[in-house]
Amino acid sequence: MGMKCIGVDVRGTSVKMGIFETTGELLDKWEVKTRKEENGKYILPDVAASIREKVSAMGLDLKTDIAGAGLGVPGPVMPDGSVEVCVNLGWKNVNPQKELSALLDGIPVKSGNDANVAALGEMWQGGGKGYDNLVMITLGTGVGGGVILDQKIVAGRHGLAGEIGHIHVRDEEKEYCNCGGQGCLEQICSATGIAREARRKMAASETASVLRQYGDNVSAKNVLDAAKEGDELALEVMAVVSHYLGLALSQAALIADPDIFVIGGGVSKAGQFLIDMVQKDYDHFMTISKNKARLGLATLGNDAGIYGAARLILQ
Amino acid sequence: MGMKCIGVDVRGTSVKMGIFETTGELLDKWEVKTRKEENGKYILPDVAASIREKVSAMGLDLKTDIAGAGLGVPGPVMPDGSVEVCVNLGWKNVNPQKELSALLDGIPVKSGNDANVAALGEMWQGGGKGYDNLVMITLGTGVGGGVILDQKIVAGRHGLAGEIGHIHVRDEEKEYCNCGGQGCLEQICSATGIAREARRKMAASETASVLRQYGDNVSAKNVLDAAKEGDELALEVMAVVSHYLGLALSQAALIADPDIFVIGGGVSKAGQFLIDMVQKDYDHFMTISKNKARLGLATLGNDAGIYGAARLILQ
Repeated sequence: MGMKCIGVDVRGTSVKMGIFETTGELLDKWEVKTRKEENGKYILPDVAASIREKVSAMGLDLKTDIAGAGLGVPGPVMPDGSVEVCVNLGWKNVNPQKELSALLDGIPVKSGNDANVAALGEMWQGGGKGYDNLVMITLGTGVGGGVILDQKIVAGRHGLAGEIGHIHVRDEEKEYCNCGGQGCLEQICSATGIAREARRKMAASETASVLRQYGDNVSAKNVLDAAKEGDELALEVMAVVSHYLGLALSQAALIADPDIFVIGGGVSKAGQFLIDMVQKDYDHFMTISKNKARLGLATLGNDAGIYGAARLILQ
Repeated sequence: MGMKCIGVDVRGTSVKMGIFETTGELLDKWEVKTRKEENGKYILPDVAASIREKVSAMGLDLKTDIAGAGLGVPGPVMPDGSVEVCVNLGWKNVNPQKELSALLDGIPVKSGNDANVAALGEMWQGGGKGYDNLVMITLGTGVGGGVILDQKIVAGRHGLAGEIGHIHVRDEEKEYCNCGGQGCLEQICSATGIAREARRKMAASETASVLRQYGDNVSAKNVLDAAKEGDELALEVMAVVSHYLGLALSQAALIADPDIFVIGGGVSKAGQFLIDMVQKDYDHFMTISKNKARLGLATLGNDAGIYGAARLILQ
């Protein structure tokens, strides 16, 4: 029986945890509530207690059977693993990897930003398995990203690497993004963005569309489902989304040039339909070379974070 | 007396060479003609003979005093150092690092793409000295780039990393770039691009300008000189150039997030005037964080290639 490693994905409402073989096999996963009271001071003790309980229930010994634990944090993580501010958890100036290690008899603990950690998970056992260089784009409520080169997270000197959702892509955008900019990729290609594009298209044209039944409550899923059925207005919306997504991928390809792009998040449930659309636009912007990163789908869903966190410890 | 290393920058008309202390001090530099006849078969033997001559003239011994030689090649270099095609030199399916090593009694030789190697040179002893993570943008006849993370070149899985000149930035561009695309950064921000923007602005307006005396022969230098003097039309041209350059820097910052951007090439002779303009546009696109890569000027000029090539051998 080889060493195991533990992945911890700290989120706003729950902390997901998994115990893995160092070869990548998930043995068990579970979660606990994220107690954010008093600046999140209970979060790491809760995590440590839960890990101790699980390890002991599996008949394992923390010091001899566990190679270490990795920790995905929903915010910027400095190169030494410290976190200056994590609004979602209430943390300020903590070093969660040091603290968790101390709570777990000194086993190695490493932390990283959650989006970067998810990308590492997809590289290890997900849509990027078998590749050393990957850029992940997560199309959820927002647009997140992670850059992996040589099997390692590129966090960036200021924690900004992989912040692909905030690349400016549309000059004519008048609304503001959460980041303070205008015309960010996230404003168009997130689930929120897709729904907004659909509302705008409905308001701007008279084209008949199944989307009109939803009115202002139209969702990204409505748009993708309708586009798959050939709805003209939904296809127009997705053409815009795909255009900017293909553009952003080409930018990443001409800067970091990975083996593969992995598309994840709720919007990626549209599957190969989405990939085929984006591929066309990406190709359009990559006339420089036929030989370039391929596109693929994320496969780990919400587990990408625990996989990637566990993988952190194997570097 | 410590070991020395040699940097070789192979260009279309001449091969530049330098011998360095491993601490980065340039001891001597020289060049030989690039003999491109017969698919460039004489180039590496010429280089080897010239290095032997120099080493011997300096009273050094190839095997005991030279740590190795690095080689910058004007084209894509595969991870094993091989070159499939190098149009500029006539090379096809050669492994210049293997060949040059064999010609130099087996001393270590490493090769890399010239733009990437120049970026490494600027990191070592130029505008990026003291930083481990740098993105260089070279504004010359074209727009080249190089990405350095953790003091190492990011060449990319398909040799496309740092091809920042071919990022699509302008949708309304009708002319084609050499890469086959439309609206590449290079079409606007290269010396050629700046001159073209000036011709377009002159044709499209009646604004009086000192640039009009040059007519269709207006150069990027004319534009920059006039802009510095406050010429309205030249400032309009540079506002466009700076806008797209700031945009491209923000894209690179949100993907690779280096410590510093180093701007080089002929256009960068405009100095701090250019940096100040671009800084404003870059800041505009980086609302996400005040804490981000700074901008600086390249300082090694045409020697960046020999510095970077020599540095290749010290990794």
